[in-house]
Amino acid sequence: MVESELLNGTAGKPIRCRAAVSREPGAPLVIEEITVAPPMSHEVRIRIICTSLCHSDIIFWKMKDPPGFFPRIFGHEAVGVVESVGENVDEVSEGDVVIPTFMSVCGECADCMSPKSNLCSKFPFKLSTSMPRHETSRFTDLNGHPLFHFLFVSSFSEYTVVDVAHVTKIDPTVPPGKACLLGCGISTGVGAAWRTANVEAGSTVAIFGLGSIGLAVAEGARLCGASRIIGIDVNPDKYEIGKKFGVTDFVDAGKSGDKSLGQVINEMTGGGADYCFECVGLSSLVHEAYACCRKGWGKTIVLGVDRPGAQLTISSHDVLHTGKSLMGSLFGGIKAKSDIPILLKRYMDKELQLDEFVTHEVGFEDINKSFELLLEGKSLRCVIWMKN
Amino acid sequence: MVESELLNGTAGKPIRCRAAVSREPGAPLVIEEITVAPPMSHEVRIRIICTSLCHSDIIFWKMKDPPGFFPRIFGHEAVGVVESVGENVDEVSEGDVVIPTFMSVCGECADCMSPKSNLCSKFPFKLSTSMPRHETSRFTDLNGHPLFHFLFVSSFSEYTVVDVAHVTKIDPTVPPGKACLLGCGISTGVGAAWRTANVEAGSTVAIFGLGSIGLAVAEGARLCGASRIIGIDVNPDKYEIGKKFGVTDFVDAGKSGDKSLGQVINEMTGGGADYCFECVGLSSLVHEAYACCRKGWGKTIVLGVDRPGAQLTISSHDVLHTGKSLMGSLFGGIKAKSDIPILLKRYMDKELQLDEFVTHEVGFEDINKSFELLLEGKSLRCVIWMKN
Repeated sequence: MVESELLNGTAGKPIRCRAAVSREPGAPLVIEEITVAPPMSHEVRIRIICTSLCHSDIIFWKMKDPPGFFPRIFGHEAVGVVESVGENVDEVSEGDVVIPTFMSVCGECADCMSPKSNLCSKFPFKLSTSMPRHETSRFTDLNGHPLFHFLFVSSFSEYTVVDVAHVTKIDPTVPPGKACLLGCGISTGVGAAWRTANVEAGSTVAIFGLGSIGLAVAEGARLCGASRIIGIDVNPDKYEIGKKFGVTDFVDAGKSGDKSLGQVINEMTGGGADYCFECVGLSSLVHEAYACCRKGWGKTIVLGVDRPGAQLTISSHDVLHTGKSLMGSLFGGIKAKSDIPILLKRYMDKELQLDEFVTHEVGFEDINKSFELLLEGKSLRCVIWMKN
Repeated sequence: MVESELLNGTAGKPIRCRAAVSREPGAPLVIEEITVAPPMSHEVRIRIICTSLCHSDIIFWKMKDPPGFFPRIFGHEAVGVVESVGENVDEVSEGDVVIPTFMSVCGECADCMSPKSNLCSKFPFKLSTSMPRHETSRFTDLNGHPLFHFLFVSSFSEYTVVDVAHVTKIDPTVPPGKACLLGCGISTGVGAAWRTANVEAGSTVAIFGLGSIGLAVAEGARLCGASRIIGIDVNPDKYEIGKKFGVTDFVDAGKSGDKSLGQVINEMTGGGADYCFECVGLSSLVHEAYACCRKGWGKTIVLGVDRPGAQLTISSHDVLHTGKSLMGSLFGGIKAKSDIPILLKRYMDKELQLDEFVTHEVGFEDINKSFELLLEGKSLRCVIWMKN
């Protein structure tokens, strides 16, 4: 394919290809022919091999008001091959296998230079509809109308254009149907345990919400050597799934009776978990998580996205007197360009589990099936293959 | 004095001595003769050499309702000499110079065994009116009525009884009029920078409130090698005082104009301070501090005691997207028995400044003068000497 691209000489020219376009909030995507412009300076055009569906796609696909915008090309967990690069791109070249990510690494700012931050200051995360550097779209439909980008990736298309700051080159021998998971959700969960919380071996972890992110937190905690991993969910079926990722104990959130979840976990652990992760996106659960993290050193890590404007409320007395800390984790504290290769190596070394997250696979034509599966809670990750 | 105690054979017997008793909320203390019972098991009777007045004494002295209780013996920053010990006390013996502290170190619980916590689980901090282990008072007035203890120390008395878990043995060559400051306030501030935040050399620190605690945070940050220390206070005179403790920049909180304090600090620092300390005790200031701590790695540390029931509110979005952390610091994360000797050594080595905190000294008879000075904002620390 790469050879044919070179032979066909697509570099520098627009490419006609198929994309799954979201034209209306909540409506099935439409596979259309679109035109993908050549990459501008510092940009990379990528042929997508496969992409997986993440809950964030669903949230913005349903969104009727800004920051929901249509028509748009969703998708932000993918693996692809570099088809061509714009000017000033030295980091990757045609034929390289890459993972595009919604978070950038410019490599030059104070955050990228510091081991403590993954929040690149040059291209900060924002809910943009275009390219990060040039602020225009590379997609047009057959009527010549621009299509909106999503999270700087837009992988529900056979070709996409991504800024080089958002591109991580990977080992081409890693199966793309697994590697794509590291583009967002699984990196976020594993990273939250590994990078943000830095879970210590032998410690106790409580995870509120065992969706893909929560399960990935469990997987990350397992990798870090946590000795007890307590999963909390309203769906008791999650215990069996959770066991695959190291969950050792389960609390049915619907059956805590008169006790708050915080009380239940405090009793189970004899004083609280060393690390509590909120993976649902409810301020009230952050409160419970904070209540049952261990005094003296407990960390509460917020991963769930609450509704805009939601407020977290904690008693001033508790903050002062308990020695606990509260922190957020965006993309799990992962620096894409340096940490994703580490995680992929750990996968190839059979330490990190990725296969178990892939519950379904479909061809590009059946992309809407992946939405149905996630909406029905039947899938963890459904991988969508561009070529059957 | 110690010799005469031994000669007099006070060990095992009640001691008649003078104490400054607080009989009514907000009213001047009354120097009375009281009786101090011998130490029970695990207890130590201490002859107080000197004691300093801390703002917490004032708060509880003013308090008309529980946890304000009267008659009471206040005081919790002191140096004394062990007069006698109860059964099961091996750690100190007659003649040892000690600092009693409101925080305990049992040395055996999970918290005391961990380098990450200073919140002893065996004798947790609480607003008690008696001894921590036996839950009775060792003080009686001449009418035979018990007097309440304060914070397990009650140093406004020529003799007091303290549980051995609350006693730190110190180098007897350290001047007691300086060492006493480490019993609470100065350790809290210095420790918040040193132990809780672990301020990195070269970093930027913002301190909300330049009372004794805030100034001690500055001193701690200076010791840790912070390159920029921004003090924020409503009283512009604090800048000159602050300079002694390493404050390099000052923001007059009353003159920020249309801008919030968070905005002012963000602009001064080009994106926020690495560490923000709230030393006033206002939830609204915690909010400002959080707003101007650096994204990616900023830490907001709460030291100020807000009114009971006060709530901290932070936007859920900010927690998730900024990578900042929020934590409290009780007694500065200091483990009394191991950290106070380190701080005293640094004082003796002329690294840690203590002399500059002592603005006034009075004899025990003039103890009410120390209250006036602190209430009028004229003193940082007033040291009260038992013997003139």
